[in-house]
Order: sequence, then C-alpha cells, then structure tokens
Amino acid sequence: MNTMIKNADILTMDDEFTILNNQVICIQDNKIVYIGEDEPFFFLPNRIINAKGKIVMPGLINSHTHCAMTLMRNRSNDLPLERWLSEGIFPVEANLTYNDVYSGAMLGITEMIKNGITSYLDMYYIHEASLEAISQTGIRANLSYGVSTSSKVKELGKQGAEEYCKNFVINNKKAFKGRVNTSIEVHSVYLVDEPELVLSAQMAKETDTLIHIHLHETETEVENCVKKYGLTPIQVCEKTGILSNKVTAAHTVHVNDDDMALLRDRKVIPVHNPSSNMLLGSGFADISKMIEMGITPALGTDGAASNNTLDMFKEMHLAALIHKGYKHNSSAIGAKQILKMATTNGSKALGFDDCGIIKKDMLADLIIVNTDSINMTPYHDPVSVLVYSARATDVDTVLVNGEILMQNRELTSIDEQKVKFEATRASKRLYGEK
Amino acid sequence: MNTMIKNADILTMDDEFTILNNQVICIQDNKIVYIGEDEPFFFLPNRIINAKGKIVMPGLINSHTHCAMTLMRNRSNDLPLERWLSEGIFPVEANLTYNDVYSGAMLGITEMIKNGITSYLDMYYIHEASLEAISQTGIRANLSYGVSTSSKVKELGKQGAEEYCKNFVINNKKAFKGRVNTSIEVHSVYLVDEPELVLSAQMAKETDTLIHIHLHETETEVENCVKKYGLTPIQVCEKTGILSNKVTAAHTVHVNDDDMALLRDRKVIPVHNPSSNMLLGSGFADISKMIEMGITPALGTDGAASNNTLDMFKEMHLAALIHKGYKHNSSAIGAKQILKMATTNGSKALGFDDCGIIKKDMLADLIIVNTDSINMTPYHDPVSVLVYSARATDVDTVLVNGEILMQNRELTSIDEQKVKFEATRASKRLYGEK
Repeated sequence: MNTMIKNADILTMDDEFTILNNQVICIQDNKIVYIGEDEPFFFLPNRIINAKGKIVMPGLINSHTHCAMTLMRNRSNDLPLERWLSEGIFPVEANLTYNDVYSGAMLGITEMIKNGITSYLDMYYIHEASLEAISQTGIRANLSYGVSTSSKVKELGKQGAEEYCKNFVINNKKAFKGRVNTSIEVHSVYLVDEPELVLSAQMAKETDTLIHIHLHETETEVENCVKKYGLTPIQVCEKTGILSNKVTAAHTVHVNDDDMALLRDRKVIPVHNPSSNMLLGSGFADISKMIEMGITPALGTDGAASNNTLDMFKEMHLAALIHKGYKHNSSAIGAKQILKMATTNGSKALGFDDCGIIKKDMLADLIIVNTDSINMTPYHDPVSVLVYSARATDVDTVLVNGEILMQNRELTSIDEQKVKFEATRASKRLYGEK
Repeated sequence: MNTMIKNADILTMDDEFTILNNQVICIQDNKIVYIGEDEPFFFLPNRIINAKGKIVMPGLINSHTHCAMTLMRNRSNDLPLERWLSEGIFPVEANLTYNDVYSGAMLGITEMIKNGITSYLDMYYIHEASLEAISQTGIRANLSYGVSTSSKVKELGKQGAEEYCKNFVINNKKAFKGRVNTSIEVHSVYLVDEPELVLSAQMAKETDTLIHIHLHETETEVENCVKKYGLTPIQVCEKTGILSNKVTAAHTVHVNDDDMALLRDRKVIPVHNPSSNMLLGSGFADISKMIEMGITPALGTDGAASNNTLDMFKEMHLAALIHKGYKHNSSAIGAKQILKMATTNGSKALGFDDCGIIKKDMLADLIIVNTDSINMTPYHDPVSVLVYSARATDVDTVLVNGEILMQNRELTSIDEQKVKFEATRASKRLYGEK
C-alpha cells in the first residue's frame, strides 16, 4: 500500500528539531520512503491524505503501561496506597481471565489510538490475550514477559515457566510485520528475589532482549531494599547483572546522586510517569536533573488504575508543569525536552530504533494533529502548542506501520461501541456488579 | 422561556453531596423551579433536553482569570518570569485597544463555554470591551475594576478615574438580567500603594462590593512586602481595611500559618491556580491544609498567558494530583473537595450566591456531561470520573441563566470561526506579525 501525505508541516523530532513546511511524505508499506517539496515521479499513491493546516509528527510513545488495567479505571482514587492495592487491584487481578485481559487491552489500545499513541511498552499477565488485541488493532507494542510473575508458574512449574517465557520472548520478536517486540519483565527488586534477578539478566543477555522493570518508585521500596541488601534497588540491579542489558526503568522517583550516575553510566532509560507518581503519593522524579546529566528519560501513562487515562497529551502537560512547580523555576524543563521524552526517547525505551522521528527509511508511525481548535488559537508555535494547549482530541489521523488506524477521528478497523461494551461487562464481573 | 431536562442524573453539589437519578428539572426563565421524579402538571416546556446517560451538574466556575489574555496564548512558555513579563506580556499590554480586548474576551468566553465554564471572575483592562463580549455571548461574569490600574487615569486624572471606577461598579451590578456583577480590583499589594489600598477598601465598603486581589503569589512578593511594611501582604490588607470586605484572593502560594489563620478568620476565598503557579515557577499553594483549617478555596485558570488554556477540567485534574505528589500522600485531597472548589466555592468567590448548586430556586447555570467517551469507560463513579477521567470535550450542553449556550457541542449563538479569525488577527497585530 502506497500512502502520500500532502501539504505536511512536519515536526520531525530529529536532533536539530527541524520543522519542515509544506512537504510531501511518501509511505510505501510500513516505511517512509520520501520527504520533499515536490511529488516524486516514481511514487504512485493508493491513497492521499491532505494535512493542510495540521501538524505531522511522530506518533506518541507510551513507554510504561499495564494496558488491560483500563478495567480498573476510577475504582480506587484518593485511597492510601495499601487500600488502593488491597481494595482496587489485588482482588481483581486474582480473578483475571483471558477474556478480561483481552477486553481490557482492546479498551486501552482503542483509547491510546484515539489519543495519538502509536506504540506502548506493556507489563501485564496473560500475554497471549494482549497479543490477540494488538494483532487485531494494528498498534505497535513491546510486551514484557516476567519469568517469576508469569501465570504459567502454577501450570508448568518454575522451570517450565522459565522455558515458556524464553520461547515467548524469542518467538514474538518482530511479530506481526515487526509491530510486536518483546522484553523481559523484572517486576521490581522487591517482588523478584536475587536468584531470579540473576536468571532474568542471563536470559535477557542470551536472547538479546531488553529488560523492563519498576525501579525506585517509592521511599519504602528503597528503604526496604537497603535494609535487605545494603544496596539501593539500582545497585542490586548492577550486582545481579540486570544493568549489563538494555534496561527501561519505570518511575525512578527516589534516586540519589549515585543512583542517577548509575542510570547514566549504564544507559538506562528511565520512564517518567507523572500522573501515577502523584496519584499514589510517590512524589516527583527529578527528570530535569537527569536530562542535565545526559540521561534520556521517556514518558509513560502507567496503568489506568493509577492515572486514570492513557493520554500522553496529559502526561506531557503534567511533565512540563510539575518540575517548574517543585523547583520554583519556570525554565526547569522545556517543551522540546518533553516532546523528545514522548517520541524519540520512547523509541529507545521500547527497543524500536526506527520509530520516533519522521525521516526517510524510518517506520511510518505518525500522527496528524489539528491546529484550529479554540484551545490552540491564536496558533503560533507548534512545539509550545502541542505541550501546553493541545488535547488528545485534537489528534485527527493516526498511522502505525504505514496503516491508517484513525482518520478524521474515525477509527478504521475497531468497533469502539463493542470494545466499550465488552470491557464494561468484564469490569463489572470482576467487581461483582450486575 | 421554559426548559425541561428529562432523565437527569444530577450531581447536585449540595452540602451532603446528594446525587439524584432519573430526575426532571424544570427551568423557568433563569431559575430552577422544580426538581423531581415526575413531570409536574403546572409546567409547560418550550423545549425539552434529554440527559439520559449523562451527568447534570452545576456549571464550572472559573474564579480567577484575565480573559482577554487568550491573545497571548503560547507566546512565552518556559521563560524565566522576568522574560515572560518583559517579552510576552508588557509590550503587548502597552498597545491594547478596545477591539483587542473585545476579540480576546470573545475568544476566552467561547473557549470557556465549550469547556463547561458558566461564569468567571475577570481582572483586566478596558472593561467596556469585556462587557460587550459578555453581553453578546450569554456567559455570567464578575468584572473587577481597578481604581489605580484603570486605563482611565490618563484620560480623567486620578480622581476622575476613581469616580469612573465607582460608577462602573455601581452601574453594572446585576446588569444583563443579573448575569454581570462587579468587584473592586486591587491588583496586588506590590502594585497598589497604601493610600490606594485604604481608598479601595473604603470604596468596596461604601458600594457593598467584593474585592479581587492577587495575594502571596511569589516568594519575592512576600519578601519585598515584609521589607517595605514589616508585614506580609495579607497583614497589609488587614491593616488597610481590605479584609473588612468580602475578598477573593488569587494564588495564596507562599502563606505561613499566621497568614492562613487570617485567611480563615476574615473568610477570604483563596483561589487556587495550579497551572499558572507551576508554569511561572511560583510553587504549590497548600490547599489541602487550608481545607483542613476550614477555609473554602475556589479554583481558577488564571489568564491563558500563564496556563495556556481556560480549561477547568485540566485545573481540577492538576489540583487533585499535585498535592498528593508534593505531600507524598495519595489521600491529601479528594475528588469531592476538588469539585466543590470548581462549583460551590466558586459561587462565593464571584459573589453569585445563587449559583454552584443544582436546587430549586437557584439560577439555572448547569452543564450536561457525556459519560460514554472511551476515557470514562468503564463508567463507574461520577465524582471520580469528572475529576480524573473527563475532558472538557466531554461537556455536551451548557446553560447559563436558563439559556442554552451549547447543545451537542454546538454553540447556539457564537460564530466560532469568526471569533478565532478576529482574535488571531488582533494577536498578530500586537506581536507585529503579518
């Protein structure tokens, strides 16, 4: 399929932050094959998209979520963390079926596409159900499989589960025309014991797979780890070989200078989750300091249970504001840095190196954003507008891997009513409601 | 005009936080005359609104803004405060014409109506232009007139401007069928000198008018005030008689325990402006502590130049999150308290005592919010959903003073394209662009 986008004002998100105006973009199958001022003679489009007056930019990358937790949306807000877990999360997760995870993933993916998110890094259970939802919807994702937290442990025993995990990770690398990638889940240093950390590190090395971990989310996590190991969680990761792999680490809220230096030296990608860290009372990750140190943080929504939406426009806005707030510095972090976190840095966090920038030979994951909504008027600087004024509902068109998933805000292949109906039914069942 | 709303699930926002399901609401002219399960025999509606499956709630009240500053949207983000003022604001405000303020106010009011805001407290220049926009659009507002910052000082001299201010305040009380109210602007203790503070306090008393002030916004403001007066800004207000009036005070970020006690004892309504206080690096107002002390804070967007939208759903979400974040407490503030700030407490901040609650004999300022958007699914608890999941674009219908200003997201009497075109033209002229 050949797609041509005309009259494109492109926020390329390259290193120079180049903005190109009035361009033609040619997409062949899943790749961008041409960007230029004139229509190339060699390219015969099957379809043409007119982007006049809109912003064309890389799709937003949600670098940390638990997609199917949309089923738990708005169930435990304003509660202390212990009650959030014991009332809102644990009783539900104990009873999750394949169909629940499928319905929740369909809801989350549909929401993300409508919000201009083209790929996500997922940590959850019953991965086969998520794979089915990803396959059907056309989104790009990296699924993290946990050796020890796998639901296969009961069924296959510990060793069997390890083997299953390894096969899952290998078999689903570059699945669905490259739309799916895999990672090893290491839930956290507090839930995974030392031998399992070592095993996960080895498996990641052996299979050349990135590791996805929760790291330094709460003060309690760090304190307990220091008590148990005499080391901070990230130091435990260093000791057990985790950091000898590519690592994407969600949260990184409570990190001291030594922890930050280790993040930098081991090229860990920390994922900032502002909504979730505030909702659960964890605090503010010092992202602006990390950027100063040369670390390249990404951005994520976390699961809907601690957010309660999967909306990267909200997260960008929050990330742009809160650091100015707690540092009493209106220049603490800028809109360009925020956009990098939500696009190019995200591609590194997910291990999709050919996403996150609009450039020849890159994958065609891009969104087209309206600029004429009243909240963006008078329209002025696309960078500022996207971070401070735009809403997810301003996203007009979404392409993933060269396929149009939404155009004029209409989903092309998802029955939204059905998705909402089935997710509502699954959620009510889980919470024991009619 | 008689309006009937059927099948209404009502978030009344009364003191008991009553939620009524499947009700009939009857509105005669500008007032709610009936709420009940059955259609009353005495009421012949001219029009019927079906609210089935939606939330009916009081319109959101924006308790501190500078409406026409929409012209400066996205012009000076990420800059230090001094450059924000000297590059983005001052050069523009020096050249404002009647037409600029009118165009900017039309843009701001249109945006607010689309975002479910039914009234606002405004502090700006060339009030006659704002009045014209309010008159045309049907929104409710309280306009604050400043004795010393009035643009009439040059024209009429100081005494003439004082006289003009007094007449403006008196003549526009309950104007436009009660849609407009007036207040005395005291910009701040740093811009208004002591004799003028005394005069403003006296004028407010004489005319029985509330005072609208910026108070304790930045550390510098407080430090300089203590140097000059040996008192904090709020203590200066006490000394000069300002606090002997009804006072609505924007920001109140840097307040110590004594300042807070004075806020409480003098029944000042502090207005929380989370976006603006973060964008400009001011910090976090300790709203949850104020609520514990028995203070009733309201919520506002501030002007678009320091926000960059006039979106109370965004402000509610921010207010619900940031206090959990900086206090490391996921229960620091709850969704109910946030909704109170945005409705009932706002009515006090604006001096419209018969708004902010849906009840018989109250003014018919209400909004109808969709509940079926994907970000609200599975739909569960209206209170949590409105604060944590809803977007302004989920507002379906807006009534002010019994008139429908928006229905099915269509504005009834505003030409949005014209408003955007004229505001863009005015903004470009002010920034010297073609």
